[in-house]
Amino acid sequence: MVRVRMDLAYDGTGFSGWAAQPGRRTVEQTVQSAWGTILRAPRPTLTVGGRTDAGVHARGSVAHLDVPTEQWQALPGRSNRAPAEAATRRLGGILPDDVAVRGVQEAPAGFDARFSALRRRYSYRLQDRAQGGDPVRRHETVRLTRPLDVERMNEAAMHLLGLQDFAAFCRRREGASTTRTLLRYQFAREQDGLVVATVEADAFCHSMVRALIGALVPVGQGAREPHWPLQVLTSGTRNPGVTVMPAHGLCLEEIVYPPEAELAARAARTRARRD
Amino acid sequence: MVRVRMDLAYDGTGFSGWAAQPGRRTVEQTVQSAWGTILRAPRPTLTVGGRTDAGVHARGSVAHLDVPTEQWQALPGRSNRAPAEAATRRLGGILPDDVAVRGVQEAPAGFDARFSALRRRYSYRLQDRAQGGDPVRRHETVRLTRPLDVERMNEAAMHLLGLQDFAAFCRRREGASTTRTLLRYQFAREQDGLVVATVEADAFCHSMVRALIGALVPVGQGAREPHWPLQVLTSGTRNPGVTVMPAHGLCLEEIVYPPEAELAARAARTRARRD
Repeated sequence: MVRVRMDLAYDGTGFSGWAAQPGRRTVEQTVQSAWGTILRAPRPTLTVGGRTDAGVHARGSVAHLDVPTEQWQALPGRSNRAPAEAATRRLGGILPDDVAVRGVQEAPAGFDARFSALRRRYSYRLQDRAQGGDPVRRHETVRLTRPLDVERMNEAAMHLLGLQDFAAFCRRREGASTTRTLLRYQFAREQDGLVVATVEADAFCHSMVRALIGALVPVGQGAREPHWPLQVLTSGTRNPGVTVMPAHGLCLEEIVYPPEAELAARAARTRARRD
Repeated sequence: MVRVRMDLAYDGTGFSGWAAQPGRRTVEQTVQSAWGTILRAPRPTLTVGGRTDAGVHARGSVAHLDVPTEQWQALPGRSNRAPAEAATRRLGGILPDDVAVRGVQEAPAGFDARFSALRRRYSYRLQDRAQGGDPVRRHETVRLTRPLDVERMNEAAMHLLGLQDFAAFCRRREGASTTRTLLRYQFAREQDGLVVATVEADAFCHSMVRALIGALVPVGQGAREPHWPLQVLTSGTRNPGVTVMPAHGLCLEEIVYPPEAELAARAARTRARRD
């Protein structure tokens, strides 16, 4: 078997999220089908570093798959290309316009797209002037009716950083830990009417980014005090004052992995902690 | 009459360009209709600083219209708002998602959206890695199959700057001058696989930006020498080697006007030169 790393980007608008679901168009199934076609084999299993919900975009997603050596070596056909390059090109010819495989490579030893990851970075785009904004990018921007005070939001966001139990911001899943390390949570006014949030953590539980943004928007609009999001966090339970924000403002920007020598150790550590 | 300046942005995808055409969805008619609705009057005439073709986007378009004083003063209705603010809000409530009125204001004396303009700035987005690019922004990015050498393109673009007859890059129109001042023509690699061109001139003739990009792409791909675009320019006739590039990569980013005191003089000068 050859373990293959694949970097990909997609417009989430036309997908019911990453994870395969019967009867729905999903990124996972779309990419699996393309691999099945170029390998002339049944759809392979994909492991992704960041599962995204319906409507969420990705510019820096990473997945892996294991390909039987014989199928891998058959990829170039009669061309002189290396199998990874042949795969990249052939996937590009098959995939629809809303998914792009940015690169395919033989993964270094110990690589696991999910468990080797050190951290994930998301962005969230907010338009805070009713008549402002960029209609060309409306598919990736959420429109608010009241302006945001970015400084006030950053003051509040800072208090959420670090190793914490994010149960208040997670959709609960039986037996799963909700403890995460929030490494970065910042808002920046990129232009008049546009605020972009950057959220980075070792990992995220379900709906966590969208709930974190939903906890900070009322602070930025003056409806809540800057210490309120921390109060919600420490309460440990979901708060009806926190809106889970719409999916289309969210984009998975990057998944960061350690240097090659540390990949296997990192994966072992992550697995141990999750069990 | 009150002369009104309106700043607007639109996603060109769903429009047959700016200019009203019977039976087509155009930005001009869409915005005119919205004004007609809020003024409770027939559609007003709009004068725009940058007419765009079908599929071309705008983030910084500017238009003006003349509104009878009585209609203008009736805009706030029973609210305390100024007429300009009332107009902005009410247009925002009526216009479809792919057009945004960024602002409405009473224009300073002598203002003419078309003739007072000092210069126009456009961007053009090129993706030059087959599998690269950002699927979320594919509606505003043109995909090339061969990589671009940005340094080579900038060397060639530099020679086109200045006051020149751009007949070789314009769709000919009887009696119209094709002499323009090209103020800026630069390519920048914004990220791996993405090159963004900036083109700025006092004014542009029809299809000029798209032809200018089309003259530089073969230089960037190594198919033409850097002195070739200047040869085309000096030939004074359209060259079959120059492709008019697709509309959807193009965006009108900004129209720049002089300080208030110079608006009327600038308009008079521009009009005199065009006649």
